[in-house]
Amino acid sequence: MEQNIFHLQYAMDTFYFLVCGALVMWMAAGFAMLEAGLVRSKNTTEILTKNVALFAISCVMYLVVGYSIMYDGSLFLSGIEAVDEAAVLADFAAREDGFVGGSIYSGASDFFFQVVFVATAMSIVSGAVAERMKLWAFLAFAVVMTGFIYPMEGAWTWGGASVFGLYTLGDLGFSDFAGSGIVHMAGASAALAGVLLLGARKGKYTKDGKVNAIPGANMPMATLGTFILWMGWFGFNGGSVLKLGDIANANSVAMVFLNTNAAAAGGSIAALALSALLFKKADLTMALNGALAGLVAITAEPSTPTALEATLFGALGGLLVVGSILALDKLKIDDPVGAISVHGVVGLLGLLLVPLTNDGASFSGQLIGAATIFVWVFVTSFIVWSILKAVIGIRVTEEQEYEGVDRSECGVEAYPEFVSNN
Amino acid sequence: MEQNIFHLQYAMDTFYFLVCGALVMWMAAGFAMLEAGLVRSKNTTEILTKNVALFAISCVMYLVVGYSIMYDGSLFLSGIEAVDEAAVLADFAAREDGFVGGSIYSGASDFFFQVVFVATAMSIVSGAVAERMKLWAFLAFAVVMTGFIYPMEGAWTWGGASVFGLYTLGDLGFSDFAGSGIVHMAGASAALAGVLLLGARKGKYTKDGKVNAIPGANMPMATLGTFILWMGWFGFNGGSVLKLGDIANANSVAMVFLNTNAAAAGGSIAALALSALLFKKADLTMALNGALAGLVAITAEPSTPTALEATLFGALGGLLVVGSILALDKLKIDDPVGAISVHGVVGLLGLLLVPLTNDGASFSGQLIGAATIFVWVFVTSFIVWSILKAVIGIRVTEEQEYEGVDRSECGVEAYPEFVSNN
Amino acid sequence: MEQNIFHLQYAMDTFYFLVCGALVMWMAAGFAMLEAGLVRSKNTTEILTKNVALFAISCVMYLVVGYSIMYDGSLFLSGIEAVDEAAVLADFAAREDGFVGGSIYSGASDFFFQVVFVATAMSIVSGAVAERMKLWAFLAFAVVMTGFIYPMEGAWTWGGASVFGLYTLGDLGFSDFAGSGIVHMAGASAALAGVLLLGARKGKYTKDGKVNAIPGANMPMATLGTFILWMGWFGFNGGSVLKLGDIANANSVAMVFLNTNAAAAGGSIAALALSALLFKKADLTMALNGALAGLVAITAEPSTPTALEATLFGALGGLLVVGSILALDKLKIDDPVGAISVHGVVGLLGLLLVPLTNDGASFSGQLIGAATIFVWVFVTSFIVWSILKAVIGIRVTEEQEYEGVDRSECGVEAYPEFVSNN
Repeated sequence: MEQNIFHLQYAMDTFYFLVCGALVMWMAAGFAMLEAGLVRSKNTTEILTKNVALFAISCVMYLVVGYSIMYDGSLFLSGIEAVDEAAVLADFAAREDGFVGGSIYSGASDFFFQVVFVATAMSIVSGAVAERMKLWAFLAFAVVMTGFIYPMEGAWTWGGASVFGLYTLGDLGFSDFAGSGIVHMAGASAALAGVLLLGARKGKYTKDGKVNAIPGANMPMATLGTFILWMGWFGFNGGSVLKLGDIANANSVAMVFLNTNAAAAGGSIAALALSALLFKKADLTMALNGALAGLVAITAEPSTPTALEATLFGALGGLLVVGSILALDKLKIDDPVGAISVHGVVGLLGLLLVPLTNDGASFSGQLIGAATIFVWVFVTSFIVWSILKAVIGIRVTEEQEYEGVDRSECGVEAYPEFVSNN
Repeated sequence: MEQNIFHLQYAMDTFYFLVCGALVMWMAAGFAMLEAGLVRSKNTTEILTKNVALFAISCVMYLVVGYSIMYDGSLFLSGIEAVDEAAVLADFAAREDGFVGGSIYSGASDFFFQVVFVATAMSIVSGAVAERMKLWAFLAFAVVMTGFIYPMEGAWTWGGASVFGLYTLGDLGFSDFAGSGIVHMAGASAALAGVLLLGARKGKYTKDGKVNAIPGANMPMATLGTFILWMGWFGFNGGSVLKLGDIANANSVAMVFLNTNAAAAGGSIAALALSALLFKKADLTMALNGALAGLVAITAEPSTPTALEATLFGALGGLLVVGSILALDKLKIDDPVGAISVHGVVGLLGLLLVPLTNDGASFSGQLIGAATIFVWVFVTSFIVWSILKAVIGIRVTEEQEYEGVDRSECGVEAYPEFVSNN
Repeated sequence: MEQNIFHLQYAMDTFYFLVCGALVMWMAAGFAMLEAGLVRSKNTTEILTKNVALFAISCVMYLVVGYSIMYDGSLFLSGIEAVDEAAVLADFAAREDGFVGGSIYSGASDFFFQVVFVATAMSIVSGAVAERMKLWAFLAFAVVMTGFIYPMEGAWTWGGASVFGLYTLGDLGFSDFAGSGIVHMAGASAALAGVLLLGARKGKYTKDGKVNAIPGANMPMATLGTFILWMGWFGFNGGSVLKLGDIANANSVAMVFLNTNAAAAGGSIAALALSALLFKKADLTMALNGALAGLVAITAEPSTPTALEATLFGALGGLLVVGSILALDKLKIDDPVGAISVHGVVGLLGLLLVPLTNDGASFSGQLIGAATIFVWVFVTSFIVWSILKAVIGIRVTEEQEYEGVDRSECGVEAYPEFVSNN
């Protein structure tokens, strides 16, 4: 009898992880569609290729080295195969009187959930460097980012390792529930390094200081991508409770789903309203980026706020993202999809909001954690991008950029029949 | 030991709600893609903006006031936070001998599931008034609809409250399992009121009585939207069993998934076949609306029919929707996506089919319930639309309509590179 | 108490089936988008119509006759209704000491999961015969394929029936976990028969032996379709464990999710790399077909390989699919979306990889099973296509093909505003 309960609990917690992981994997499609919708048609096939390939590379690199680096150094490949049912049952039995609080589930399900996070971090980069970066340089960077840069800072945070033996973030009061900083700001930091080395797209900023809008080719695609991300985020945040199978955790998972949705709603409304005030138009792309900003803002702590607080935190993210997008353009930092603002600037906001509702986190801890992540990812990324720039180059030629990278990099047009002067 | 079982049951029922809720949230993307595919390209950005914003508004309004109105008036915000594990366990223990029949799950999961229904009702409206309604008037209506009009009729039906103290629908034999009437017909009723005040699109009906087809700009998008809705409907109907965790309820949930799918299949085939007979062509939009009609038709009672009956009920919906779309055009009621036919006319059919397989419902109860919902939603909506019309206007200018509302309302074109004479 | 555990286990295994089934249903959208993206715009509405209608037809035919043929001949319709809770509990009680290994779940959930597989097999056909086959001939074939051809070979494999009383595949060491052969190669075999009778599209192969590329109209759609299939495949393979609710099975389901993802990643990278070597360009369509090939390759046995083996098996599939697509073009077998290569050639590879990691399967058994499936499906399909060709014709006229089948078959253009010379 007892054993049967153990079996059911193990199965339930494992299935919960798998369902959440499948939802996070789905976010890869969301980033692909969002970015494909926001670039010009002549650069669409290339951004799609990057998104498919970066997801595949993330899976392979994290399997081969990343997971080992991030979680206590044991080699992943052996650990996952050795499924010892008797040991699991003994583990359950050892904590019999209170077992419902324990987290025991399939190691494969944990890996599956973790691996899709790596891809999310990397997906953020592709949007920011779109329309002018060489495809193979980008994929080379993806190898290093997903196999080394991300797992290192992941080890310092979720992995609990000390930062080069100097300090341990958890001890300093750093808390990042599902990765506003660890995943989103990290991706944005890598993107920022790339964008600074890469420069803006031709024609984006004119000499007299004007900023030219370069509209995306396919708004329904961009909207679809946002809805996919919105849905996938339930898995991203909901799965980060790491356990479902007792009353307290089930309540936590439910609250996380609810707050994740509330924050997206708040962010979308706030960004739409602010942009309507500023531009006198209902700017769809701001509404979309506002929803994403709301999601990023709540990701650092979706379990402790009330639903109303979550809505307000999301709204704050939505306001900030509009300001950030305008500010980055002033600074001539060219980010075609707004990824640095959505995931970086608002990711930082998310970290700083945590202490308001979670006593386990401190502002100083959040700041030190944010600084650690940013410095590590930005500096290492800058070095890797620089090496790539020196060795193979990271930017396509001016002619290729003018003609569109689809032709030079992929040889396949995204919409061969729709665009007359392609 | 016993406690552990309670914990697992609570967690399982909560997770089931969350998964179903995520699927219903996904329907928001379905409506957005369906409507974006069925309007002309010059009105696409605006319909996307409406769909994103209405979902966000629904979430906020239902959180702030709607849920309180619909379910026993207790203020939502406090109830959801107070998670008292001891009380839940005591509740389980009190019904120890037969606890498996009880429904105990996270309040947050219940809210999450309910809130996405509100958005569904509102999504139905946006399609019907597409291509000529002012964006801000629409969003203002969304505030009232999701915060007041829908929650009131929701309280009379699923909430169990009496209709203005006069009669109680449940006592009269009214039954609407997942909302053919409460959600779909309600949305269509609000849409009808708007369409009557708004009038038809320019050029839809000519003076000599001809009906001009205005083809949608993007058929793959419309098809994708339909598939998304089809998938999301498993959560919509499947979650409406309200409990998973015992044999009887698990069987019910499974039957609901099966019948939901069967009805969509039946509806799609019937509508495709009928339109092929009528027009000598395999009309994709009719196949899509047929699938949706099948889904709406089964929604009032997906648990009691056999799978064959569900297929036939769906087919009936598919035939009816073709007839209804043609009839509304005869009446010069211009509904660009067929939403009033799919959700309103077939929603009523769904209600009337319930007594055939569910002894707990009566035809008189269904008729009174349908009349109550329709009169309430139509009249209040008509009043709200009328006020909006008088105060800020609900229709764009003729020039704006000719140029497309994307330009005037959003300032962003949906496909800036594809359409030459945009 | 015991009963409560039984109830929970039953509910959990049922829900697992339903979630996986919903994911497989979602694959119908994936095939529709993939094919819609890879054909020319003038044939897009028709391929969408085929995909919606074939899914609906599959559901009805499998309900009415297919399921009965495939699983022990009992008529489906009565079996699913009769839910006898007492009998289920007695069944559980009878195996009390080790019940956790038993598979007891809702019959409706099993049917729901099975029925979406039928549609997958049929979806494979539509892509291969795209852009020149008559719509009604195709749908007539769908009726026979889903109601008879597929259920017969399904009965011989998963159903455990002997092949015309001659031999039983299970006894010979044939094993096909989730259907590399039973579903994917079967679909490709039916497609091949159709393509051979149909001939190539006009202009695909010129007299001097040149192969003309005919680019698809919408790459984001094709990419979206691939991501949808990738996600849906978690349900396709994950659900094929057939049980979740104990430690061993939960581990198996988790491993299947992980390996399914790993194989897709491996296939995508391998195909992209090989095509880059061959064509000097990063060919998106090859990356997409590579991912799908990886998925097909692992489907015959996703539970026993390590994650690294799964990645390599997927990569093998990715290499093979590039070669196969090139080879079929040499043979002038015109398959617009590469379905025969992805699902047929790589499906066979998947079957042959099984004995490497699963001792329960033998190479001879796999070969005999593959031959059985191929001969049965190819021959019966060839006969049915031939009858259709003789009676109503299977190919549109040259003029219709030139103008696009959307106009002649559907009367609705897919993108009426985007294509100038449509």
